[in-house]
Amino acid sequence: MISRVFIDEGNVIIVELPTYLAALNAFTISYPQIVGIPVDENGMRTDILEKELKRLQAEGKKVKFIYTIPVAHNPAGVTLSLDRKKHLLELASRYDVAVIEDDPYSYFIYESGVDVTPLKTLDTEGRVTYLGTLSKILSPGLRLGWVLGNHHVIDALERAKQTADLHTSTLTQFIALESIRRGVVDKTIEKAKQIYKMKRDVMLDALSDSMPENTWWPRPVGGLFVMIFLPSLDIDTKKLLPEAIARGVAYVPGASFFANGGGWNSMRLNFSFPPPDKIAEGIKIIGDLAKERIKSPSEPITPEKFYNF
Amino acid sequence: MISRVFIDEGNVIIVELPTYLAALNAFTISYPQIVGIPVDENGMRTDILEKELKRLQAEGKKVKFIYTIPVAHNPAGVTLSLDRKKHLLELASRYDVAVIEDDPYSYFIYESGVDVTPLKTLDTEGRVTYLGTLSKILSPGLRLGWVLGNHHVIDALERAKQTADLHTSTLTQFIALESIRRGVVDKTIEKAKQIYKMKRDVMLDALSDSMPENTWWPRPVGGLFVMIFLPSLDIDTKKLLPEAIARGVAYVPGASFFANGGGWNSMRLNFSFPPPDKIAEGIKIIGDLAKERIKSPSEPITPEKFYNF
Repeated sequence: MISRVFIDEGNVIIVELPTYLAALNAFTISYPQIVGIPVDENGMRTDILEKELKRLQAEGKKVKFIYTIPVAHNPAGVTLSLDRKKHLLELASRYDVAVIEDDPYSYFIYESGVDVTPLKTLDTEGRVTYLGTLSKILSPGLRLGWVLGNHHVIDALERAKQTADLHTSTLTQFIALESIRRGVVDKTIEKAKQIYKMKRDVMLDALSDSMPENTWWPRPVGGLFVMIFLPSLDIDTKKLLPEAIARGVAYVPGASFFANGGGWNSMRLNFSFPPPDKIAEGIKIIGDLAKERIKSPSEPITPEKFYNF
Repeated sequence: MISRVFIDEGNVIIVELPTYLAALNAFTISYPQIVGIPVDENGMRTDILEKELKRLQAEGKKVKFIYTIPVAHNPAGVTLSLDRKKHLLELASRYDVAVIEDDPYSYFIYESGVDVTPLKTLDTEGRVTYLGTLSKILSPGLRLGWVLGNHHVIDALERAKQTADLHTSTLTQFIALESIRRGVVDKTIEKAKQIYKMKRDVMLDALSDSMPENTWWPRPVGGLFVMIFLPSLDIDTKKLLPEAIARGVAYVPGASFFANGGGWNSMRLNFSFPPPDKIAEGIKIIGDLAKERIKSPSEPITPEKFYNF
């Protein structure tokens, strides 16, 4: 819907590097020009965003929106700091750009002191369209979410939705309503959060134990994923996947999450689904495989290095 | 999905005059050039279709598809004859055009001897994409349907579907599966068919009793709707609607179903929803209102006359 409503062919949109694969696919079918802004442990590099907005303005190009997953980023597992949130909104205002805030994971934060204030809360100009989902806090099979935005955006989305399928299933909407009303959603969140935290810790420990030296991963404060970068720019995790699967473990090759190429040496690992002992076992298998294939590990590949900032 | 997969901006598509409003809206957002082919009591006028295909070919224009609702047409209430079905497919083959067959109503036929053979059954070239729906035979609130088509079309639709919403709710799909398996759908059809037939007859009788002389309507052999054409080309049923609603009855102004203007004197009446006594009462109200507004009824307005064939 966002793709349909905001993007005309050739428009410029800005996404994070990496970003959510399904969003990328949804945007791509409207044929935009996609500009990527790398993330680091504190989320989108808003200093680079600033440079890019300046460059695009100088080239006379209007940016339709900045798409961001500020909290517990999928796939990168990073979270945008409050300072950068403010910087992002200030830039959006200065360059008159809409912001699409995709927030499926802020219910799943495993550490105290993490700022999860939505951009929408800080938005004084009606510039942010906020996307929420019941997929993680009730059930992904219901296909339900919600949108907060200004009246123009909501009106346009409503028309696009009507045109696409008239409306969302009323049955699943009633199920969601009652699940919220009766506390099922709150209980699901509390229960899932404890389990996910434990599993995240198992995965982080296993990564420390099993991965080749100089492998890099941002430590996720929440969400469902860890993204790891193997310490070699020659390795392609997509080519490695069949062998990993043959040994009993799967991952998503990181390159799929990068808008314009890159991320060949990265992979997205999910810790919410497998049981804890399988997580440890799986990471050991991936670690062994990576060690076999990387004969001489390079220096640590930080995002700085990786993206040639 | 059909709109997204088949239509690029400026492509020519062919629809019936009138045609299903939501389909028209869904097509329109892909910015096609829409060519309309009028219907009469035997469905789409394939003789006119032939002329239009010839004309478009002469103009060097490629037609992407012909969209048709062959059985118990919404809104027109007409059904395509077997001869015309064959003619339509022959033309589609000769001019190499895809056919989109939308068939929500063939489960609801109230008379014997009506041929409801789908175009898809007669299709030897994989040219027809057939659309079915559970909206009328189980529940509209589930938002479920199905598609039959050749592998190229199904692959493309699958990709478009994934991009749009990943997948349809698994819960509602399981509900549908079990409803079919346990005979709920079959029972719903049998029950609904009897009730709808009775209500259709009530409406047809009421129309004969109450409408101004020379009002015209095709007699629907099935489906949920009667479309009536008031005997004056000066009357606009859209302007009449607020007064009808003030008197307690609503209808859909017919003009909304016409791709490129027209149908101002028509309205779509639904007989499946209201109880029988309300149907008679409602038609009486509409008839009285029409009589008040049409001072001197014209000659009968047959489709021939209406469209200036």
